[in-house]
Order: sequence, then structure tokens, then C-alpha cells
Amino acid sequence: MCVLRTADFGHTDFSLPADEAYRAFQDELVAAGLLVPMGVPGLYGRSGAFERIAEGFDACATRAAAPFGYEVIRFPPIFARANYEKIDHIKNFPDLMGSVHTFAGSDHEHAAMLARFERKEDWSRDLQPAEVMMTPAICYPLYPTASGTLPEGGRRVDLLGYAFRHEPSEDPARMQLFRQREFVRLGTPEEALAHRDEWLARGEKLLAAVGLDVERVVASDPFFGRGGKLLKATQVEQDLKYELVFPICSAEKPTALASSNYHLDHFGLSFDIRSSGGATAHSACIGFGLERIALALLPRHGLDVERWPRDVRDVLALD
Amino acid sequence: MCVLRTADFGHTDFSLPADEAYRAFQDELVAAGLLVPMGVPGLYGRSGAFERIAEGFDACATRAAAPFGYEVIRFPPIFARANYEKIDHIKNFPDLMGSVHTFAGSDHEHAAMLARFERKEDWSRDLQPAEVMMTPAICYPLYPTASGTLPEGGRRVDLLGYAFRHEPSEDPARMQLFRQREFVRLGTPEEALAHRDEWLARGEKLLAAVGLDVERVVASDPFFGRGGKLLKATQVEQDLKYELVFPICSAEKPTALASSNYHLDHFGLSFDIRSSGGATAHSACIGFGLERIALALLPRHGLDVERWPRDVRDVLALD
Repeated sequence: MCVLRTADFGHTDFSLPADEAYRAFQDELVAAGLLVPMGVPGLYGRSGAFERIAEGFDACATRAAAPFGYEVIRFPPIFARANYEKIDHIKNFPDLMGSVHTFAGSDHEHAAMLARFERKEDWSRDLQPAEVMMTPAICYPLYPTASGTLPEGGRRVDLLGYAFRHEPSEDPARMQLFRQREFVRLGTPEEALAHRDEWLARGEKLLAAVGLDVERVVASDPFFGRGGKLLKATQVEQDLKYELVFPICSAEKPTALASSNYHLDHFGLSFDIRSSGGATAHSACIGFGLERIALALLPRHGLDVERWPRDVRDVLALD
Repeated sequence: MCVLRTADFGHTDFSLPADEAYRAFQDELVAAGLLVPMGVPGLYGRSGAFERIAEGFDACATRAAAPFGYEVIRFPPIFARANYEKIDHIKNFPDLMGSVHTFAGSDHEHAAMLARFERKEDWSRDLQPAEVMMTPAICYPLYPTASGTLPEGGRRVDLLGYAFRHEPSEDPARMQLFRQREFVRLGTPEEALAHRDEWLARGEKLLAAVGLDVERVVASDPFFGRGGKLLKATQVEQDLKYELVFPICSAEKPTALASSNYHLDHFGLSFDIRSSGGATAHSACIGFGLERIALALLPRHGLDVERWPRDVRDVLALD
């Protein structure tokens, strides 16, 4: 099955075009029982072995954050539509959104919807938007809960959750629903920037400790449409987004395993969050993509986790 | 803050009407920092202390299942719309569904949607149904992946995930998105029924070990509309659903902490799953509601987890 790489030696063959490499990698992962296809591109069940890798790295992040006293909050993968409407996502990334709709009609209307369903017509027009949206990024649900004045020294918050992005893809590392472990800083511009810089360095070390030598690159988000180009250029120019990238299937298109954003006062303004000094709060976050890190580790050390190097198994507590 | 109960002694005051008790309990949990309101009824962030309780019970379930060799699979909280359309949920529970929609239009159509958004009109009509639905029950994504002939002796599968139910409520134990740890049996009718009976007994023991003396009751699902009553009665008559219930806020309306369903050959037929003998497979599942169990334990032992009884702390590995 190993058409893509010589897994035993941790060497990856990047001679395949990216699209073919994605499919070959997906086939390998499915054949090894690590991912279970769910009939939609970018949606998979994950095996126990896969989960142990992801949880192992998550525990590494917990240990790295321990000295700094983060508040732990876990949000579910949906959040209030009213808050979604305050954060410009509909302007910048409409094609990635997930809006949750439900049926709120009568018995009679239900019968009409079922008739459409039976005739294989579009029954979704009979639904109403629910009060919730899929969470596009793990930290978005946090900011609306942080309105008001921050304590002196700001806040450090530890998050873990699922994000939804509607981008069906053959690339196993581009899932429609994926988990990120995030560390968020709310406070002054200096506090936010220090968080970003400290965590990028910490992230590089965490990933190196499991054999992933990542590259730190300035990055941009996939802004929608014709205006998107300009927004991307501005984001790069302002030095707002960094990624820690590693080649999983392609050397030309390496995969972001972690991503850090400095939001300036965007969320502070949207949700009236103020520093203890009274100024609008700035924020920064770093997120570690748990599925992506597992997917980078598998070809790096081989699809048979039992045969991974002793030191990597120890760091991830795989025994 | 403890208007509802004398938490120190594990006694609950059930004299309040359920609705008032729900609000009082919610206020207590928020004041104690255990839940973070997200602006939509039934949607909360959960604190680190809350999560440790839920994860502690989850680990108890892992230990209880360990001797039986379950396959571990973790599905994300969305699954294929095409599979949703095969399971009768749209007929039976349309009001609980979550259909995921996204924007798939051009720059020009995007501008039109944004104009509606700015005018505070309904912009959701500009969206298209995505290929995915919210997962209504943790085990639904499993069955479409199990099509074909089962191995001799059937399959035992260990699941953990989020389920969505659109039922906004003030009751903290009725969340719109919640986690269940599920154990599923696919095989002959005898295998499915044995699984149900063994796990109900095992679940009673697991819950008793943390101080929750549950009652086993025959139950029914909240089927929609006028026809729903008959379906509920049939379900009860066929002895298909059991719940392990415990009074959290109300003695009259105790809360299901775990729930077991025998599906007969429903999923076997829907997804062509066959026993090794060739007959259509039967299935049964038991799910433990992790948030509900944490919410039952808090008033039982007090909102300050540090002061819980030694033996309960040990069972949940809270130290």
C-alpha cells in the first residue's frame, strides 16, 4: 500500500503531483484503519491509534502551558448566530461558513416537506435558520463572553474544540471539521504580541520534540472573492498571521500544523472588551491542528505506531 | 447563591417548580464558573473543573469496556446528508435536526447577500445546503460505514462524540450540543439484546460507584407531531428504549444520564448490514451523557469539587 513513501525510514517521496499524493495518502490511511471514510470529502472517522497520537500531542501542549496559569474553557462546535453576525466572517469567508437550519413548522408543513423529500426535491427550503452557526475558529466563541473590562494583566485562555470550514478536499489534512488546541491572550497590544512570539517559539520546540522540524512562515487567510487579494496582501503586510508549516504530501504546498493570529483590536471592538487601563483590548491566539499534527507524524515515523522511535513514543506517552 | 440545594450534604430541595429549578441551577453553575453562557439557551462553555468530571467518568467507562475488545472510532459532529436521508430522522424528529448550509455563489451574489445582511433582512435564504448534517446521535455516523457482512461474532464499537438536538431549554441538562460515550453492538438479535442488558447493568454499577443511584425505566423518544404519540407507544410496547434516570432538578422529571436503544434491524436494513450468517444485522447501543453525568454529580456532592468525598474523587481520578 505504501505507494507514497518509504515509511520505515521517515522519507517522503514528493515526486507525485499534490492531488495524486493526497489521494494516495488517503488510501494508505484508510487501508491502515487510521481513518474511516464518511462519504463526504474531508470527513472521516478516526481510529483509536490516530486519537492516541492527537491526544498525546494535546497533552504535550498542556504541559507546555502549565507554568503560565491558563483558564481552561471548552466550547462546543456551534455558537450564537447573533455573535457570528458581529465578526465579519460573512464578508470575508462566506464560502467556508456553516449555518445551522432546522424545521420549525406545523404538522401540515411537515407533511409538505416530507412530500418534497419523497419526490427527491430540495426540502432544505422548508427549514428555518436556527440560533446557531458552526464555529469557524476555536477562539471565536470566547470573545463574546469576554465583554467588559479585563482584569489587570489581561487574560490567558486555554481552548480545545472543533472548527468547521466548508472546503471539501481530497487532502486528508484539509478536513471540514477539525480540532485545534488554542491558547488565547487578551490584553494590551504588547501582551498580545508577546504571546504570539513566545508561543511560536514554544510551538516550534513542541513539534521538534516529536520529530517535526517546521518552518515559520508569514501567512494569510483565504479571503473570498475579488476583494480577497487585497485583504490577503494587507494581512501579510501587517505581519498578522504566522504558520508553522511541514511538508506532509507536498514540498511545494507544505501544511500548516499550527497557526498564530494577532487580531489587533478586531475582537476588542466587536465585543467591547477593554484592558484594565480602559483601552480597547487586543488579542492574539495560537492554534495547534491536532489532526494535522497526527497526519504529519504518521508518514514521518511510519503508519505502524508500534514501531515509532522510542523517544517519540515517550514524548507522546503512547505506551 | 445556593438557593436550590444544600450542596454540602448532597441533599436536593425539589420543592421548586421544574422551570424555576432549572434557572436557579443554571445561575449557580454560572456563578461557580462551571458553565459559561453563550447567549443561546442550551449552549455553554465548560470550565476545566467541569471537564475533569466528565473526563473522569469517561475514563471509568473505558475501564469498564476494556475486557471486551471494543474497536475505537471517533466521528466528528457532522455526517453525510445522503446518509441522514436514509434513517427516517426527517420523518420522526424534524424539529430536532440541524442542517448545515453554506454560501456557494459568485462575487455578485455575495454582494447581494451582504446587502440583505446589512439591512438586517434574512440572508440565510442565499445559502445552499452543504453535503453535511449535524449528527443527531453519536452512533448514526457508524452504520453507513458498516455496510456489508459483519465478521463472525459481529462488531463491538466504542464511540465518543457530540450530538446536536435543536431543543433550546433553560435546563442545563438539556444542551443543544452534548457529548455521549457510546458502546454499540452490531450482530444477531441475541447479541444486540445481550449487549443492551449487560450494559444497562454495567451502567448502573458505574454510576453507583460515583454516588448516583439511578433508576432503570422504559422510555420513548420525542417523536414529532400528531403521529408521534402512536410511535412512542409502539416503542414502549416493543421494549426498545431504556434510560438510567436520576433527579437533578426535579423528582418528577428525572434526567436520563444514560440511554440504551435496541434498533431491531432498522440500521441493518437502511445500510445493508448483514450478520456473518447472512441475515440482516440487528443493533443496540448504550450512551452515557457526559455533561449530564457531571451535572448530576455537582449537586450530589457539592459545586466545590475539591470537597467531594475521597472515594468519588478517587474513582474519577480528580487529583
